[in-house]
Order: sequence, then C-alpha cells, then structure tokens
Amino acid sequence: MTYKSNYTIRLRLGSLLLALVLSITSFNCKRNQEQEPTEETITTSKYPILGLSSADAKEIRTLIGSDKILQASYVASQETADQAITNGIEVPLPKDPGGGYTHEKHKRNYHEMYSAGLSYQITNDKKYAQFVIDMLLQYAAMYPKLPLHPKSKENHPAGKLFWQGLNESVWLVNTIQAYDLIYDTVNDEDRKIIEDQLFRNVVEFVSVDSKDTFNRIHNHGTWAVAGVGMTGYVLDDQDMVDRALYGSNKDKETGFLKQIDMLFSPDGYYSEGPYYQRYAMMPFMVFAQAIQNNQPDLKIFEHRNQLLGKAVTTVLQLTDENGAFLPFNDALKEKNYLTGEMVFASNIAYAYYKDSALLPVILKHQQVSISSAGLQVIKGLENYTDTGYVKNSMLIKDGNGGQDGGLALFRMPNEKDGKLNAIFKFASQGMGHGHFDRLSLFMYNGKQEILQDYGAARFLNVESKVGGRYLPENQTWAKQTIAHNTVTIDEKSQFGANVKKSSTISPKLVFSHLENENVQVVSAIENNGYEGVEMQRTIAMVKDEKSERPPFIVDVYNLRSDKSHQYDLNFMYQGHVMETNFEYVQQNPLKALGTNNGYQHLWKLAEGTSDNTIATLTWLNKNTFYSISSLINSGSKMIFSKLGANDPNFNLRNDPSYMIREKGKSNHTFVNVIEPHGDFDPKLESVKKPHSDIKDIQLIVANKEYTIVQIIFKSSQEYTLMLSNQSHDSNKTHKITIEEKEYQWTGNYNLKLN
Amino acid sequence: MTYKSNYTIRLRLGSLLLALVLSITSFNCKRNQEQEPTEETITTSKYPILGLSSADAKEIRTLIGSDKILQASYVASQETADQAITNGIEVPLPKDPGGGYTHEKHKRNYHEMYSAGLSYQITNDKKYAQFVIDMLLQYAAMYPKLPLHPKSKENHPAGKLFWQGLNESVWLVNTIQAYDLIYDTVNDEDRKIIEDQLFRNVVEFVSVDSKDTFNRIHNHGTWAVAGVGMTGYVLDDQDMVDRALYGSNKDKETGFLKQIDMLFSPDGYYSEGPYYQRYAMMPFMVFAQAIQNNQPDLKIFEHRNQLLGKAVTTVLQLTDENGAFLPFNDALKEKNYLTGEMVFASNIAYAYYKDSALLPVILKHQQVSISSAGLQVIKGLENYTDTGYVKNSMLIKDGNGGQDGGLALFRMPNEKDGKLNAIFKFASQGMGHGHFDRLSLFMYNGKQEILQDYGAARFLNVESKVGGRYLPENQTWAKQTIAHNTVTIDEKSQFGANVKKSSTISPKLVFSHLENENVQVVSAIENNGYEGVEMQRTIAMVKDEKSERPPFIVDVYNLRSDKSHQYDLNFMYQGHVMETNFEYVQQNPLKALGTNNGYQHLWKLAEGTSDNTIATLTWLNKNTFYSISSLINSGSKMIFSKLGANDPNFNLRNDPSYMIREKGKSNHTFVNVIEPHGDFDPKLESVKKPHSDIKDIQLIVANKEYTIVQIIFKSSQEYTLMLSNQSHDSNKTHKITIEEKEYQWTGNYNLKLN
Repeated sequence: MTYKSNYTIRLRLGSLLLALVLSITSFNCKRNQEQEPTEETITTSKYPILGLSSADAKEIRTLIGSDKILQASYVASQETADQAITNGIEVPLPKDPGGGYTHEKHKRNYHEMYSAGLSYQITNDKKYAQFVIDMLLQYAAMYPKLPLHPKSKENHPAGKLFWQGLNESVWLVNTIQAYDLIYDTVNDEDRKIIEDQLFRNVVEFVSVDSKDTFNRIHNHGTWAVAGVGMTGYVLDDQDMVDRALYGSNKDKETGFLKQIDMLFSPDGYYSEGPYYQRYAMMPFMVFAQAIQNNQPDLKIFEHRNQLLGKAVTTVLQLTDENGAFLPFNDALKEKNYLTGEMVFASNIAYAYYKDSALLPVILKHQQVSISSAGLQVIKGLENYTDTGYVKNSMLIKDGNGGQDGGLALFRMPNEKDGKLNAIFKFASQGMGHGHFDRLSLFMYNGKQEILQDYGAARFLNVESKVGGRYLPENQTWAKQTIAHNTVTIDEKSQFGANVKKSSTISPKLVFSHLENENVQVVSAIENNGYEGVEMQRTIAMVKDEKSERPPFIVDVYNLRSDKSHQYDLNFMYQGHVMETNFEYVQQNPLKALGTNNGYQHLWKLAEGTSDNTIATLTWLNKNTFYSISSLINSGSKMIFSKLGANDPNFNLRNDPSYMIREKGKSNHTFVNVIEPHGDFDPKLESVKKPHSDIKDIQLIVANKEYTIVQIIFKSSQEYTLMLSNQSHDSNKTHKITIEEKEYQWTGNYNLKLN
Repeated sequence: MTYKSNYTIRLRLGSLLLALVLSITSFNCKRNQEQEPTEETITTSKYPILGLSSADAKEIRTLIGSDKILQASYVASQETADQAITNGIEVPLPKDPGGGYTHEKHKRNYHEMYSAGLSYQITNDKKYAQFVIDMLLQYAAMYPKLPLHPKSKENHPAGKLFWQGLNESVWLVNTIQAYDLIYDTVNDEDRKIIEDQLFRNVVEFVSVDSKDTFNRIHNHGTWAVAGVGMTGYVLDDQDMVDRALYGSNKDKETGFLKQIDMLFSPDGYYSEGPYYQRYAMMPFMVFAQAIQNNQPDLKIFEHRNQLLGKAVTTVLQLTDENGAFLPFNDALKEKNYLTGEMVFASNIAYAYYKDSALLPVILKHQQVSISSAGLQVIKGLENYTDTGYVKNSMLIKDGNGGQDGGLALFRMPNEKDGKLNAIFKFASQGMGHGHFDRLSLFMYNGKQEILQDYGAARFLNVESKVGGRYLPENQTWAKQTIAHNTVTIDEKSQFGANVKKSSTISPKLVFSHLENENVQVVSAIENNGYEGVEMQRTIAMVKDEKSERPPFIVDVYNLRSDKSHQYDLNFMYQGHVMETNFEYVQQNPLKALGTNNGYQHLWKLAEGTSDNTIATLTWLNKNTFYSISSLINSGSKMIFSKLGANDPNFNLRNDPSYMIREKGKSNHTFVNVIEPHGDFDPKLESVKKPHSDIKDIQLIVANKEYTIVQIIFKSSQEYTLMLSNQSHDSNKTHKITIEEKEYQWTGNYNLKLN
C-alpha cells in the first residue's frame, strides 16, 4: 500500500461515516425482521469475555452515530476490515526477518482479524466474523507443521511465525481477542480445529517450548503470559490461566502477578524507563482487564495498592510538555502519549479507577479503544471540561521496594515559556536498554529541549539504517556516560559500560524536597559506577518570588576519591552559542576528543581556560537565552565539541556539547548555575536580558559532611546553599564555622537569600 | 523594563479593556454635558490629515467596545501611552550608538508620542495630547543646538538624534504623525516653537543637509521623503511636499514618485528582496496614504498601473508556508508577515484597493492599525469567511522595466505535506544587501525548509553578536556564491563578490511556463557572473497526475566555456542523511574545504566517487524523505561538508551541504532530479517509500541549441525533457536526430512521458 491511499481514506472519512450510520440503521431494521435467532444467540452467550461485552457493543452501536470520538475511533477498524476482505486472505509460510514481507504480513493479519472482530460486534454483519474464522482456519492448517522460524537468531528467543518469540506472543494477544469477539459465530467443527490445532499449539509453543521467556520477569514475559492467560479464559482452560498468573509451576515465583511485583516500583515506575513502559503497559492493562472480567475476586486492579493505575499515571507524568516520553535509556524522541498502547492503557485505567485526571490525555488522543473501557471513557467525557493534564514536581522511586534510586522531576512555572522542567536521574540500570547515565540531569523550558538526553541512536523501521534496528552508534555513543549530562571519569563509562555489573546495584536517594513552590532540592549518590570514587549530585531548582527572574537551577556535583582522576562534566546544550566570559582556542583541523567510550564520536571544536573564578556560556534557543555559569579554577578546561566523528554512515545527529574538565583531581566539587533568561523577539526586533545574571560562585566548604555554596547575582543578591551530605534527618541541626563565619541550619539543606 | 511587565500587561488585558470601555462610556457622558466646545473645535478642524480622520476616530470609538480585533489593536497603544505618562518625559542628549541607551530611548520616545496621539484621538482625553506637546517642546529646545551625532561613522550618512540618518527619518515619519493626531490641541505659541524650532529644523537636516540621502533611490531615501512630505502636509508647506514628491530640484529626477518608478519592477518586486521590501513598504504606504488624503488628484495608488497595491501583494507572495519572508539576500529567517510594517501596509492597501485576497493575512495579524485604513479593514472583515491566503506558482520580474531577470515561484499541491515550493532566483544584485546567488534554487515542502538559502549571518539586536549588526561571516560566508544552491566556479564567487560590478547587469529570463498544473518550466541565463562562462539553468516541477508520486523537480544546469574550470554545484539540504548509492570516504581529521570565498567556512566531511551513472543522496526531514539524484561520471566527486570552520565566535549555524564537483571541464551539464518521497510515522512505527524512485538519468544531447534529458524511474516510466536553449518562440518547431532517434517538439520545451 502506498501512502496515497491513506490520505484518500482520511478524505473519505465523512462520507464513510454516513454510509456506516446508514448501514447500521438498515441492519437494525433487517435484524428485527429476519435475524431474531442470531440476536438471541448473542444475548444468551457470555462471549465476548475479554475487552468488550456484548451489552457494551450494543451500547456503542447506538452511540456511534452521535459521538464523534467514538465514530472516528471505530471507522478506521471497519475500513481495515473492509479492505482486508476485499484483498482476500493470505497466510504465507514464514520466511522473512523483521521488516520483511512475511513478517509484516503476519503482523497485518492479526490487526485485520482484530479489526474484523470489532466490526462484527458493532455491525453484527457476519461477513466480518467469517473473515476471522477463515483466516484462523488457514493458520490452524499451517501452524502445527511449522518449525522454528528460519531467520531466528542464536541467543535470542525464536518464534515460529516470526523470527523472534516476542512477536509470536504479540500475535497471540491480538488474535485471541479477535477470536473472542466472533466466538459465538463459530460452529463446533471449526471451533475444534481452531482451538486444538491453532491456539493450543501456539500456547504450547509460547508457554512450554519457550518456557524461559514465559517465566522471565521482563516485558517479553508479560506479552507471553498475557497471550496465554487470555487464551485460557476464552478456551475456558483454567490451567492456562493459572500458569499465566502464577508461572509455569504455579508457585507464584514467576507469572503475571510476580511481574507486577518485580517490574514496577511502588510509585508505578517500570524499570526499563518510560519509552518501554509505554510498550509494556499494553499487555499489562489488556490482560488485567481480562482478569477483572473473568476473575474479579483476584482484584487485580487493587493489587499492590492499585499499582497498575499508578503505572499508567506515572508513565504519563514521564513526558515533556509536547507529550513525548522523556528520552532516557533507549528511547526515540518522536514517541509520545498519542500511541495506540496509551489509548488502550489509559482507557482501561479510566474505566476501573474513574480518575478524571486522565481525561485531558484521552482528549488529546481524540480516540478511544472500541471496548467496554472505551465506552466508559466516552461516558466520562460527557459534560467534562478539559482542564489540561496536570504535571507537578515529583519524586518517582525505582526498584520493586522503592530502594533503587529513582527520578526527580522538577517543574516550576516560568511565566514566559510555560514551565521550567528538570529531570534528575539516579535510577537503576533498566536492563539491556539502560544507559550508563547515573546522576545525569536534563532540562526543558516549556516545549524546548535545552539540556538534552540524546536518547537512542536508531531510525525506527528505516531499512537503510541497519534495517531500522538500534544502530552500532547506540552502543558506541548513546549508551556511554559521555553522551549524558553527568561526570565521566578518566574517559571511561560507568561500570565500564557493563550491564551485568551495573544491574547489581543502583544509585541511592539521599534526600528529596519537592513540595515547596520556590525551592526544590534533591540529592543522590552513586558510589559504584567508578571504583574508588564516591559521587554525590544535588540539584536545586529555585524561584525567587520577589524577583522577576525565572526559576534557575543550582547543580552541586561532589566527587571524592583517594586517587587522582580526570573529571569531565558534560552538558549537551541545545541552541546557538551567544557569548562566553572566557577566551577559547578554536581547533583546526578538527580531531576527535578521544579514542573510545563515546569520546571518539565527538569532534573537539575549541578549548578555553580562564583566570576568572567562573566560566559562563550563554546560548540562544528559540526566543530565550540560557546560561551555564560554572565554578572554575585556573586548571579548568572548557571544551566545546560536536557529535559526528567516526560516524561512517552519518548515523548520529551533530549535536553540540560543552564540557568542564578537571584533570588530576582526587576530590572535586563542580558547582553550576543554569539560568533561562531574557527574550529574543524578531517581530518587535527587541532583545531583553541577553546576559547571565551570575556574578560569582563561591564554594565555602566541600567535605564529606557538608557542602556550602554561595551564588552572587549581578544585582548583588546572594544565595547561600547549605547541604548536609551525610545526615538524612530533617530535624537535625547543623552548625559549621568557616573563616569565622557561622553557618547553622536544620535539616538536609538550607537556602538562604540575603 | 523587564519582560515580566510585558507579561503582566497581557494578563491584565481583560480588565483593562473593561476599564477602557467604561472610560469611553463615561467620557461620552461627560462630553455631552460639558465639553461641547472641544467637540466643536474638533469637528470643524481638518486635522488630523495623515492617517486617521477625526470622523473615523469617532467611529472607531463607537466600535471599539464590540470589536475584538479593534480592541486588541488599540489597547497596546493606550497602555504604552499611560505607562509613558507615568514614567515621565526624558529627552536625553544623543550619545550612544545603535542599541545603546539614548538610541533606544529616542526610538521609544516617538513610539510613545504616536501611541499618545492615538490615545488622544480615541479617548479625547487631553492628557495624552499634552504629553505629546510636552515632549515635542523638549525636543524643540534641544534640536537646534545638536551637532552631528558623536557616534556617526565615516562613509555612512549621519543623524543628529541617532548615529545614522536613517533613524532620524524614521523618527520624523512617526513624530509628525503624532503631532498631526494632537494638532488641534496645540496653542499658537507652542505651535510656533514646535514647528519652527523642531520640525522645520529636522526637515532641513533630512532634506537639505542630508541631500544625498534624500535624493537617493533607496529605502533610506524613501524614509526621508516620507517624513519630509508628511511634515509638509501637516505644516501646510507645499514646498516641502513637492521636494518630497519630485526631489530636491523638483525635477522628478529623484523623490517619491521616481522611487516608485525605479525601485519596483512592474510586478511589484522591490529590488532589495522581500526582507527589505517588508521594511520599505512602511514609508511607501504611509506616505502614499497621506498623499491620497491631501492631494487625491495625484492618484498615487493608481500610479504605474496600481504599483503600490501590487507591491504589497508581491511581498506577501514572497513568503513560505509559515508566513516567513523568503530568506534570500540579507534576510533574517524569523521575520514573517506578522510584523508591524505589514499591518500598516496591508491595511492601507486594503482600504484603497478593497482586495479581499488580503483579508486572510490580516486575520492572521489579529490586529489592525488604528487609522482610517484600519477601520476599513474592520468593516471588510464583517461577514468575511477566511478562505486562506492563496499562493500559486508565479513569475515575478525584477527591474523597473521588468528587464532584470526575476524570480520564479513553483508551487504544486503535495497531498501529504501541503505544497511543494521551489524558488528559482535569477534577479538583479539587489544593492548592498544582495548576495552573489544567481541561478540559485531553494525548496520547501509544506512548512519545512528542504534546500535552504542560508539568509543573513546576523542575530538582530543581540549585543554579544557584534552589537546585533551583520556579522563578519555575512560577508565571508552568507553573501558568497558557495553559500547558495548554484554553481561556484573555480572556488570564486560570481563577479568576484564585487557589488559594484554585479549591479551593472542582471541575469535574463529565457522562458517561463508556470500556468500548467502538472508541468512548470522556467529557464534563465547568467553570462556575466564568471568571465568566459555562459550559464543556463532550467528548472521544471513535474506532477504525474496518473501516479501517486508527489511532484518532483528536474534541474538542468548548462555551463559553456572555452577554458577548463572546476564547477561546484552545492545543495544546502536540511535533514539527516539516510543513504547514498555510492561509497564515500570520511575525513579525519576535518579540514576546511578551501581557503576563501566562503569555502574556508565549510568543514569537508566526506568525499565520494562512483562508477554508476547517477549519484543519489537520500535524507530525512521530519516525516518525509528527500532524494537528489545527479547525473555523474567517473570523475565526479560527491562532497559532504558542514558549516562552521574558521568561525572564531561560533557565529554560523552548522548546516550541512552536499556538492557535486566537476573538475577540468569546459562545457558541462549538471542534471539533477529532486524528489520528496515516502513517509516516516513514529506513532504507527511505519516507514513508506524510503528510497529514491530514480533508476537512471541520461543526457541525450547538450549543445548550445538544445538540451535533451531522459529520466528513468524504477517503475520503468521514462520522462524525456527537451529544451530549446536559444530560441524563445513558443510556436517554433524543433527537430533533432540523435543516434537515429528523432526528437521533435514545438515551443521552448517539451516533456514527454512514456
């Protein structure tokens, strides 16, 4: 199919809707005259039992003519089903790898079956049901004879229809729902063939032959148990269901419940990060809904203090102001909360928890799932006035007991641009898709990315870019520590970029205070990323309510070691350099900044030094200026670099970065102030406050116990930030005298303005 | 002032409007009771006479409570005036250069006087009039004693209030309008002081002391004559008016009418290009309106076949789909048709010509000028339904007789992205702000810039960037030929980058056919840019109506010389490289591509060669792929480069380019096909048509008379483009036999699909 037809489809939407409404009306008339027996069958059967009850399907049928969102959501399904019926059925022998013809065709097939199933429920037109039956019979004829997929790979769980087992599970999750939707129309003979030859064989393959994956505490395991468990409900096979819920041995050591317990933190954070959480929420929520419908006594949505509800809320909170998922770990920046998975997940969450805070996101979707949950959403939207999705500062703990560090989201209103958002990451490794980015910081101002996390190096599904898979540079650049706004020591990545090692231990939260409107402070430590170096970073976001100055960030990064090291604190700023308060030497020719661990990908552009006590870089991004002012000494190097070296296939974005390098240091404290400021208005040709407001930064003390920092503004305002590094007692009083001046405060930190 | 107060102002708009409406209402009551004499004075006086009649002011007063656009347009003026009155008057002794305090203050002063003048007309509150009088008296006390500005520069016309004379004229244009608005409230004694001490002295300075500028055919001259002419009307001094209209000697060799005749082409194109046309339209239209009000017999808006109306339409056509002015010559890409100048110009054009095609742009402004013209617009908007601003393919000729080449705008609908827009530039130099960019091509797809014109190297008003003036790199990079998508010969710019030389002669249009929906072709020559080299470029935009393929561009660039040269055809593509059909060698370390004429600013990234007959580069920009397929030979070099070398202050954007280099050639024909294609949808995770559709390009013949090119698509479609290079007769039949195949066609070109 070419994209032209897609557009034609959209243009024809209006007329199709009309045709649809008419066909429903005429169907209703016909049914009343001739099809009473069918109607009876439908109403006395318990099917469908997974996501859409027949009563709800009936109600959707009556509402669809008048509700625009419902209409728009449904029409695409019927379009897909109609087109599929026109094209005819093809169930090819599996042979191609991901992206290849048979791979894509089998994916399209389950999508078509599911669409036809929905179309049958909404129109009651049996041609849709028959299409599903016919296709399932073709699968049933082929499946028992299938060997492992010819393109399966060593060390990667194989499928039969697909090169990898994950796709097989996804196929099952979708196909069993299609079967459920048309269950009532299947005669006994076909049912036996479809269930015995196809579904039981697929379940056998997914849950027995691929037992390791089935019992894995991982999103691949979740897709597997969801498919098997839902098949169990439809086939009325409680053994299947129990194995899905409690693991192969039904000992609760693995299976769905254990996955919920292990893969999420008490705050609803999924250990792989938001990009994969989005993907995983689909099987979690769809299976949970089936459980709720069939075994309500399990109270699955109440499990772990309503964990599944929290997980949906948390992944939505982990988005920027454009709705894109925060791009840490392997993540594509284009992915936002409008994806299909979030439609399903948010609808099911709303249906159960009736949390109207979700409705603004659902309104952005302008789409619901055609399901009982979707119907609940439609009812919830009646008389609802959009108030916008609320995102506040919050701490999100990682680890199934909340013990594995986490994320701090700082969010303060910034009159001009929306909100200043900073993300401080001190979470666990996040399995194979995790990056070596502990204690990293990134920042958005309104909708603009200002200090970026590079995300993943990948062009999803673009064949010419390594088949659309992760690019080699994902490993050599994107995962490495230098690709993140944190400290790289001796030009090596944390844990030597070894996932196994880094997965054994996580950073730790020291303290978090995010409740105050004007001062928010979070501190975390990472003592294992580099042998013999203790690292503690404390991030404060500050708004002086008496000043017009936008909120700003104070960043204190302590490093303590017995040995001498090179400490590189990198900032991947986004924008155009406006000015610096120091001299720098441009490089010509350009050479790479280093030889490996990501450094080989950075062209070194310029290096600066200064006799000043602070180095300030100011850049422009859209209509706002930004400055990083850093405490430096005469040995500090300020290094400008740009991504793109040793990138033989132009796979990397050529993004800039700015680094403060400290060589030959054992203990060192980086102190930076990051300010958004001023305005660039090309329409009025006016520029306001293009210069940083920071006059000086002083480190009063930096030892194991305490860090005290003074920030002096050009307006002569002075901020003193006092941190207690070790004690985590918000009632304890601290007192320290430095050069005859006494500093005294209670609790983990104090910020004093004078 | 800081930006906080700006935002406070916006937030307070609602309540202010209410206050305003109330004050008008209460004023009307009071006026009826007590102020009859004033009312009488106002109605019997002819003032104001420039842009707003007192009858229209009265009507605006009655409409302002109910018309939202009018309200919004006015409120800012009264806010400015109120704030100015609160702050008090300051008329500092001129001392600072552009951007400095006294410079900005004198700019702010005329803006405040004009705002107060409007506020007086709308509210009839005399405090506003008094504010203008008081400030004028202060200027009157200072002006006669002023020397030339201390910061004026050699070889640049000086002002007294400002470092350059241009600002002095702009000051006069604004200030005389303010005076006109409050004219009736000035007593005889003040009037004498203001007119004799201030206005006549400023006019003397602008029109006599600065006679050269006053008589210059240039936008600086336009501001000068507009200020002087309008002052003549208000002071009832016909001598001033006549000098403004007909030049110092009143011989019509210079002055306003001559400027209209010389600076615009018959198509309404202003020779400096759209960025400066926007700026120049302000004095042209504001003065024309004053002429129309005071000397209607001159029929100024009918002059040269309604030239001024055409000029407004033409500059609006010279915008991209975001409304930004096409960024050729010195131009800042941020500037769009929402600027204040375009509000004034479009309102005046609408008031006179009643061309409702302008209304969609005015609706985008959501603002009118508070003037008689603005009132006409408000009336025009009643019952108007926005149909969107229509932009079609068009030829815009340059030169006061249309003889100096021009611009071809190709625009074809592209279902997926909006419109494919290509701009082929073969216009005159455009004076000092022109670039050496003859026969250059740039392209937009919908709102995305795909092949860019770099625009100017400047950060307007950003102090840290050379005071916000043009950067040194504007000369060393942005103006040079290599910065444009055209051929650079022997690494030198056209005319050796000498403005004087290049201003003597222009490229020539050969033929233009832009009327056909599916095939649009324009050809132009430039035989003077490089001594001894004849250059002809022919651009065709083609849509195959039978295919789903988006429109594409065929680009045929002939070079003919007796001597051997290096021909570099550069494309500043915007996006991320996806694939090439040739091998290339990455450079490491990176060195500049050359030593001067702009080459010194390009880092050479990679160089490719190929045994194939075409080289194809494919890149991704947002959700669409683009390919350039180029006819090559075994000696062709494909060079990737990136801007940023020898840029000591990070002044340049680090944009990529792709060059086809032919060395040691005398005659050579570049043939390129540029296609948008496919789709990248991160939400659906789908990618369509990521590869170029071009299989081969063949040059059948290329001689002085004819060029015949064959383009073969992968679908086996073949296009044959036959061009008659010399003859410009659309009725002439051409016949040529190449390798026993006969090609025959009538007219300048033929495109055959087989």
